[in-house]
Amino acid sequence: MKNISLLGATGSIGIQTLDVIASHPNEFKLVSMSFGTNYQKGIEIINKFHPKFVSVKDKATYDILKDTFTKEEISFHYGEEGLIEAAIYDGVDVLVNAVVGSVGLIPTLRAIENNITIALANKETLVTAGHIVTELAKKHNVSILPVDSEHSAIFQCLQGENEKSIERLIVTASGGSFRDKTRAELEGVTVEQALNHPNWSMGAKITIDSATMMNKGLEVIEAHWLFNMPYEKIDVLLHKESIIHSLVEFQDHSIIAQLGTPDMRVPIQYALTYPNRLPLMHGKRLDLSEIGQLHFEKADFSRFRCLQYAYESGKIGGTMPTVLNAANEEAVAAFLKGKISFLHIENLIETSLEKHENIALPSLEQIQEVDKLTRRFVQTLIS
Amino acid sequence: MKNISLLGATGSIGIQTLDVIASHPNEFKLVSMSFGTNYQKGIEIINKFHPKFVSVKDKATYDILKDTFTKEEISFHYGEEGLIEAAIYDGVDVLVNAVVGSVGLIPTLRAIENNITIALANKETLVTAGHIVTELAKKHNVSILPVDSEHSAIFQCLQGENEKSIERLIVTASGGSFRDKTRAELEGVTVEQALNHPNWSMGAKITIDSATMMNKGLEVIEAHWLFNMPYEKIDVLLHKESIIHSLVEFQDHSIIAQLGTPDMRVPIQYALTYPNRLPLMHGKRLDLSEIGQLHFEKADFSRFRCLQYAYESGKIGGTMPTVLNAANEEAVAAFLKGKISFLHIENLIETSLEKHENIALPSLEQIQEVDKLTRRFVQTLIS
Repeated sequence: MKNISLLGATGSIGIQTLDVIASHPNEFKLVSMSFGTNYQKGIEIINKFHPKFVSVKDKATYDILKDTFTKEEISFHYGEEGLIEAAIYDGVDVLVNAVVGSVGLIPTLRAIENNITIALANKETLVTAGHIVTELAKKHNVSILPVDSEHSAIFQCLQGENEKSIERLIVTASGGSFRDKTRAELEGVTVEQALNHPNWSMGAKITIDSATMMNKGLEVIEAHWLFNMPYEKIDVLLHKESIIHSLVEFQDHSIIAQLGTPDMRVPIQYALTYPNRLPLMHGKRLDLSEIGQLHFEKADFSRFRCLQYAYESGKIGGTMPTVLNAANEEAVAAFLKGKISFLHIENLIETSLEKHENIALPSLEQIQEVDKLTRRFVQTLIS
Repeated sequence: MKNISLLGATGSIGIQTLDVIASHPNEFKLVSMSFGTNYQKGIEIINKFHPKFVSVKDKATYDILKDTFTKEEISFHYGEEGLIEAAIYDGVDVLVNAVVGSVGLIPTLRAIENNITIALANKETLVTAGHIVTELAKKHNVSILPVDSEHSAIFQCLQGENEKSIERLIVTASGGSFRDKTRAELEGVTVEQALNHPNWSMGAKITIDSATMMNKGLEVIEAHWLFNMPYEKIDVLLHKESIIHSLVEFQDHSIIAQLGTPDMRVPIQYALTYPNRLPLMHGKRLDLSEIGQLHFEKADFSRFRCLQYAYESGKIGGTMPTVLNAANEEAVAAFLKGKISFLHIENLIETSLEKHENIALPSLEQIQEVDKLTRRFVQTLIS
């Protein structure tokens, strides 16, 4: 039995993690969780899973929970401190970090210090502080298990293989909602169009990131840290069906790939059951003869400029990926609010990167400071 | 340094094995070899690799070698006894068994008894005597490493995985030279057409077996024994590009696949370097964006009757697969000599299977007797 702490329980990954936990009641127990402000969903989850510790975003949501659960012995908390405590709650074996944004970083670090295995769905943790997180994990001999489909695919392909035999990682990309549009056609696209992802049902922010391909860019940086791989050995391959989730090429030209229907519960469950596997309850098996064809294309950096920014930021390192990520978060939020156009997202990121003076091996404080300054800078550009 | 014995050195797999050995002179040494009657190629190989033991098919070829190599200290032999001695030559670490046909069986068994690792390219070994070979290998704790591309793919996909998590094996099939022909169109096909395989450059017998899909049928039986998998859990998937060499589906719906350009040196080298990998010298890396598309189709048993016969024989077990294999060898030989039509191959196999009275757990002697009787029976049908 593994005790699970789940951060971001009401989000898309959170809900699917709960589905996995519920389908294997003898294997997993939710002991601790966090969510933002969606208290209706939160209450539902608490009633079903009976966690012992719950943290929420703000005092208002906290008050609602306190009023709802008067008899239960649940410890309620809120804010950043509550989020951290949820991560390292007593007896937690695995932290599933599924919060969106750079707020996910500190709970990951604290969990590593507490020797808790990390199932990581929060991209920003590695993007902004990859050198700190991986070093700390090494020091405490803690596994960081990838949850999103591409990294889980690579991780699965690497089982039983020697790291030295790897020739390159090939991260597949659907190309997002606008994969068939030219740059000219991207001029006038709406929020609604951007949110209509062809293959995956995900949260709003990550769906926009798919459309700009910044999502793939962040994944490349994440892959660099997760698998200790230079950027020159990480390729992005357009594959519109999202059936091959990623591939690893070895020195002997042999390529191992992981495939499946677009079902996030597979990588989530793999992170929870690793190094074993368990049956997946419900869900559709992949039948390649039914799909008939798989397509592959080169990823065009001039078409997907965010991908190029990500490679460049990653190669420079230091605080550059923090700027990339913070500028992107602010720009996407502004786009979702209708304040800026779709292509303006790229411009804001580009300007932020150009203006930034890089810090080579930043401390956590410096990362947080650069994160804050970048957000402020983007805000001034928008308003 | 691994000492290699190579049976079938002048054949397609043999030549490619020698290429692998030559490209890693610090890793592999050819100490022993056999070939049939192609003495010109054989002499070339001996001059290049300086094996200590050489066995050939017949006395005539043996005499030529004796006359050619008068000064060298090479031990020359011929016939079945020579083939066996070549397999278990002193100091051999790995036997690459690349002879074609059921003559490959006894050398494999003797090598297992001598604790020599088997790199198996000879399908008939497992098809006709799978229960004997796998039991003996288990007893002597000897690894049987697959050399052909499909089983090597499955074997690679299974590294680091738990046998219990396997849901099914998916063996891919190009469909051979006639994959786009209907049964009616198969009526008048010539030997030359059948030998023109779209993806792989292989020996004549196996190329015909690809066209009839008997090759895939034999591979299904081989997979059954190699991976201890019931036939219900082995699927065949038509995939005309031969890029995905095979796949394994796990209980959690995750599928691991092995891909590459059609280059037999990859599985050969993997068997020799296992559990490690080494760089492949020369050869083209797979670029999926260049290929653009991969296609998949269900394998139609009524179109590919040999595949159905193979599943049926495999499920019945006993001497049925021996009959399947022997009848096929004789029928293909007759087709290659222009004695029978392409579709007549299937008929001969079907008739042989129908007439056979199965022996449930046959001894080696019974297998050899059934093999002989089947060949004789097919000969009477042809002449």
